[in-house]
Amino acid sequence: MHNTTESLARLSIVMVGTTHPGNIGAAARAMQNMGVTDLRLVAPRVFPSAEATARASGATGVLDGAQRCATLPEAIADCTVVIGASARIRTIAWPELSPKECAVQFLPELARGGRIAVLFGREHSGLNNEELDLCHFLLHIPCNPHFSSLNVAAAIQVATYEFFQAHHELRPGRNLLDEETGRPATGDEMESFYGHLRQTLFDIGFFHARKSSPSLMRRLRRLFNRAHLRDKELHILRGILRQAQERIARLEKARAIQPPDGNPLQ
Amino acid sequence: MHNTTESLARLSIVMVGTTHPGNIGAAARAMQNMGVTDLRLVAPRVFPSAEATARASGATGVLDGAQRCATLPEAIADCTVVIGASARIRTIAWPELSPKECAVQFLPELARGGRIAVLFGREHSGLNNEELDLCHFLLHIPCNPHFSSLNVAAAIQVATYEFFQAHHELRPGRNLLDEETGRPATGDEMESFYGHLRQTLFDIGFFHARKSSPSLMRRLRRLFNRAHLRDKELHILRGILRQAQERIARLEKARAIQPPDGNPLQ
Repeated sequence: MHNTTESLARLSIVMVGTTHPGNIGAAARAMQNMGVTDLRLVAPRVFPSAEATARASGATGVLDGAQRCATLPEAIADCTVVIGASARIRTIAWPELSPKECAVQFLPELARGGRIAVLFGREHSGLNNEELDLCHFLLHIPCNPHFSSLNVAAAIQVATYEFFQAHHELRPGRNLLDEETGRPATGDEMESFYGHLRQTLFDIGFFHARKSSPSLMRRLRRLFNRAHLRDKELHILRGILRQAQERIARLEKARAIQPPDGNPLQ
Repeated sequence: MHNTTESLARLSIVMVGTTHPGNIGAAARAMQNMGVTDLRLVAPRVFPSAEATARASGATGVLDGAQRCATLPEAIADCTVVIGASARIRTIAWPELSPKECAVQFLPELARGGRIAVLFGREHSGLNNEELDLCHFLLHIPCNPHFSSLNVAAAIQVATYEFFQAHHELRPGRNLLDEETGRPATGDEMESFYGHLRQTLFDIGFFHARKSSPSLMRRLRRLFNRAHLRDKELHILRGILRQAQERIARLEKARAIQPPDGNPLQ
């Protein structure tokens, strides 16, 4: 058994755009029941609220400690793995985990000092595509396909229950994905990398005429998110991008020419 | 996989002495999410109620079909196994099951045509001793010992989730890495990619003077191997490499210049 305060304290539940304050209270209670304490609220419609406090039913530790964030990137800036809860089946295949798989898979990451965010979207519309783009994995709670929308606090109850179970049942397992040296890259670092990658794809002329392809960037994000990069690896990749940019800039400076496809440089 | 309508339809959720009608609605929703349809209400304080309907959020099948009973013996008269949910550790040792154990243990009973009742007591005091005397087993949801009282609808969510899981679980093992679209890249394809990557790292001047760094290439191999690329992804990555090479070749042709670090091109 791991130490709960050490591992589950680094599991962050992120509620995005929650409409009903009662759900925030019920989520806080569900979390505290399962020894999960870090709640982050992205642009809640109403918070704090008496209804949230009533539904928390004494889970004041979690509720009072909830962090309010203006944006999702701010909420997950320090997280090494980001998992988005989704009720829908996505057209683009995405690595999709059950709550149990999710807990078993990522508990070792928590034990090693990583921070995992599990995102829960709006009551009626869930997470939007931009928000899903920030996720490394999707969490899907198996349920009746004809009535598949769980209440958000009920979904948080199930997810945290599985983390609690895994935490108390399993010995730390080896995850081959996670045996690299260095620490996991943070959400901020990954975003900087994607920005840099996108710019480089312009610079080499892969994206033309200042237009990028969102679906292509999404595929690249999924690919690199799946690899679950370590900080040192990110450092190498960024070194490669920088080198490509510098080489092209030097060549272009040496003789001012038109870049390809009418994408004039300044 | 069993047939849901045959087995889960014989799982009865019995709420005893529920005080808040909202919890009845939330329980109906939780049940319908998990394909469990038989709800029995023993002496609810208020039912039906607008609050229950609101919290059911469309789970009208379960809510409208709920049976109201005056006494617990009446509610469980047709049940072959009776399981009482309990938050407290009992002084008298009682066969106590986790939700998962409960589901795994009793699913065959449902499949055989038995009817199982799971009882959930009052919000503040649970089931009393007389009610517990009617139970064959106790269900205890593992949770934080310092904050162990789950909301009754949340507890029903967890219990029905485990029955639903057990019911659908006979899935073959999944490999998360293999859920992307397309087919996995072959070893040959990966070797061609690494050769292409290595050459591009020369072309952009990342590897100097015709010397590559074996340890760096090894790190890059580990990174991309871990992502377990699909053929389509490999296609995108090679497109990026090709584009970088072509851009540089064109710039160099436009004006023959020395590449960096004394690595003269032919």
